[in-house]
Amino acid sequence: MKKKLKIGLFGFGVVGQGLYHVLNETHGVKAEIKRICVKNQNKQRNLPNEIFTFDKADIFTDEEIDIVVELIDDATAAFEIVKAALQNGKHVVTANKKMLAENLEEIYNLQIKYDRSVLYEGAVCGSIPILRNLEEYYDNDLITSIEGIFNGSTNFILTKVFEEKKSYADALKIAQELGFAESDPSLDVKGFDPKFKLTIAIAHTFGVFVKPENILNVGIDKISAVDLKYAKENNLTIKLVARAFRDDKTIIGFVAPQFIPADHMLANVRNEYNAVLVEGAFAEKQVYIGKGAGGYPTGSAVLSDISALTFDYRYEYKKFTQGEGFTFSNKAVADVVVSFTEKNAITPADFENFKGGYQGNGLQYMTGSITLQKLKELSKREEVSVILSPNAEITVLQKQAVRVERA
Amino acid sequence: MKKKLKIGLFGFGVVGQGLYHVLNETHGVKAEIKRICVKNQNKQRNLPNEIFTFDKADIFTDEEIDIVVELIDDATAAFEIVKAALQNGKHVVTANKKMLAENLEEIYNLQIKYDRSVLYEGAVCGSIPILRNLEEYYDNDLITSIEGIFNGSTNFILTKVFEEKKSYADALKIAQELGFAESDPSLDVKGFDPKFKLTIAIAHTFGVFVKPENILNVGIDKISAVDLKYAKENNLTIKLVARAFRDDKTIIGFVAPQFIPADHMLANVRNEYNAVLVEGAFAEKQVYIGKGAGGYPTGSAVLSDISALTFDYRYEYKKFTQGEGFTFSNKAVADVVVSFTEKNAITPADFENFKGGYQGNGLQYMTGSITLQKLKELSKREEVSVILSPNAEITVLQKQAVRVERA
Repeated sequence: MKKKLKIGLFGFGVVGQGLYHVLNETHGVKAEIKRICVKNQNKQRNLPNEIFTFDKADIFTDEEIDIVVELIDDATAAFEIVKAALQNGKHVVTANKKMLAENLEEIYNLQIKYDRSVLYEGAVCGSIPILRNLEEYYDNDLITSIEGIFNGSTNFILTKVFEEKKSYADALKIAQELGFAESDPSLDVKGFDPKFKLTIAIAHTFGVFVKPENILNVGIDKISAVDLKYAKENNLTIKLVARAFRDDKTIIGFVAPQFIPADHMLANVRNEYNAVLVEGAFAEKQVYIGKGAGGYPTGSAVLSDISALTFDYRYEYKKFTQGEGFTFSNKAVADVVVSFTEKNAITPADFENFKGGYQGNGLQYMTGSITLQKLKELSKREEVSVILSPNAEITVLQKQAVRVERA
Repeated sequence: MKKKLKIGLFGFGVVGQGLYHVLNETHGVKAEIKRICVKNQNKQRNLPNEIFTFDKADIFTDEEIDIVVELIDDATAAFEIVKAALQNGKHVVTANKKMLAENLEEIYNLQIKYDRSVLYEGAVCGSIPILRNLEEYYDNDLITSIEGIFNGSTNFILTKVFEEKKSYADALKIAQELGFAESDPSLDVKGFDPKFKLTIAIAHTFGVFVKPENILNVGIDKISAVDLKYAKENNLTIKLVARAFRDDKTIIGFVAPQFIPADHMLANVRNEYNAVLVEGAFAEKQVYIGKGAGGYPTGSAVLSDISALTFDYRYEYKKFTQGEGFTFSNKAVADVVVSFTEKNAITPADFENFKGGYQGNGLQYMTGSITLQKLKELSKREEVSVILSPNAEITVLQKQAVRVERA
């Protein structure tokens, strides 16, 4: 039976305010925000003063509070809040992807230790209910791959670049003005934010806890005029793709820009939308598209978690507990297009399998397959940009070696 | 706690066989098929004879059997099976959309009466977990609209027509050869099949039980060479769209072909794929794409229902029990393009709001807004085809009258 729950909220930014309004405008959820803990004592806020506190203990020691909803920016402080909440017998709802990605295995263990639930649907692609579906619906499906557009800011920038012929710098500025990109955009444009989400998705898809530092991420900040020209001439677009797939017992995962053909299911995912493409043995290809950020979409996901807590829901981490024994690796080779302006910036020797080079008509690039490590390394070089080929094949390397390392 | 469930299966066609294999190849579900009831005694089947029976009573009276999975074609016989199963204390999983659409309110009542669960994720867009998400995830979201491509056969045909310049007749033939269309394709191409799915979706989206005969359906069988020409000249494609939306307390729903702009989220949903676009107040636009039919995709959805039963899951029909008091109506006006070959087949007087006509360059059409009733009526005329305009506005008519009718 549904019980009326009381919420202690940490943080009252865009998502916190979105949640507050969503909770007030909906009838279905038997829950109310009792107290909001904020940091800045001098900020004007349009709620009565009594609801706010500046002392975390006011929430942790309040026995009436069942759920701590954590919506602050700082990942380290957020993790402290999660731990204290669980220790004090409270369930937790959070959307802090960095904190979750860095501490997921510990958070899994803490949930068992304190017999409390931590839900975080809003942390992975905002409004898209991907974690709930991975947990519940794909329970019995043997998922082989999960990939998608996990970051709205970069997708917004890429859409403006492609559809409105904006320069990367102009598109970034518009995204920042519209609030789709942070004032320090490097978490987004360098691919860290989608990597955090991928880390969480990998745990719920394959039952493997990976540290985010073991997942390679390449961003969109190096995309060049040559890449745009190449894309246009080949009727392609570019998306920043987070991807993880299984080959036998090995899980490969990384974030990198990719050329996408016009008829691909991700091609029409535009502006600030996110998308997740799941492939399974039985359900085959499935795509989820929705807004990945913003006060209301994320607030809606957070509210859905709160609602689930009124039914005592918790993630079962079924894929982990079923123990398939998958191992994460980033030893793989991928088909890429490398564009460059410096004459000798790259050579055929950089490739595992060199396919060809082209120069002229304002273009200069080489294609072939390279290791993920090389992909990352090349993308750090000045005047070089590496983008996965359309429908790129990615092949696991040295499976044997990976297993030996782990043994 | 999970319990080991025993299944009595009715029907052993494509989906039944898919389910059997899916169930054998997966580890997660504690359930097994104990008995299979089939009709044809002479068919060769590649399972031991003992598992088959030709007598329904063998399943209904078997006290070990917890779940009846019904996968037969005949809607009337299927409903009898559902009723008998519930009366005998068994849960039911079915994918029979026609049976469900025609009897949903009674099935809702029977579940309460016998305290048993009827699950049917596979009935609406096959592998797409739309019902589960409508029930669980959108619990608290005020959904304003649900629409999409609810029929794989017609989408396959339309894809072939547009991408491979096939004639409608050729495309239909290919679809039949590949098993995507029935030998009697009228349920699909005239829009009945997506209408049945829409009927079920409306119940779970808005909490309204509607009889399918009250929902207008127009198919793709009248799409003409003029329509294709119009589409190509305007960079459009055509999709058969099932749609329901809410305007205040009125729910409008219908199935009709629609011109779709190239950058629309449904435009790239190709071949036998289905898609569902949900719009809510908080989550905003969300799209689910997946295979709508076939033994494995549907078998996977059926298996997911079986798995949910091991956790005593049942639909709560929250939107119905929350009692928003919405009323279904088909009194609305929609923007359309009407193409015709006979000279006086239609006139501006057929429109509520005549926008314009065009003749020449091999095209002959009129545009404007018409009532849904008129849309249906015109589409029955020889040599006339009616297609919703791209981004067509649909406006509820006579709201007051609708309410009076109901009083």
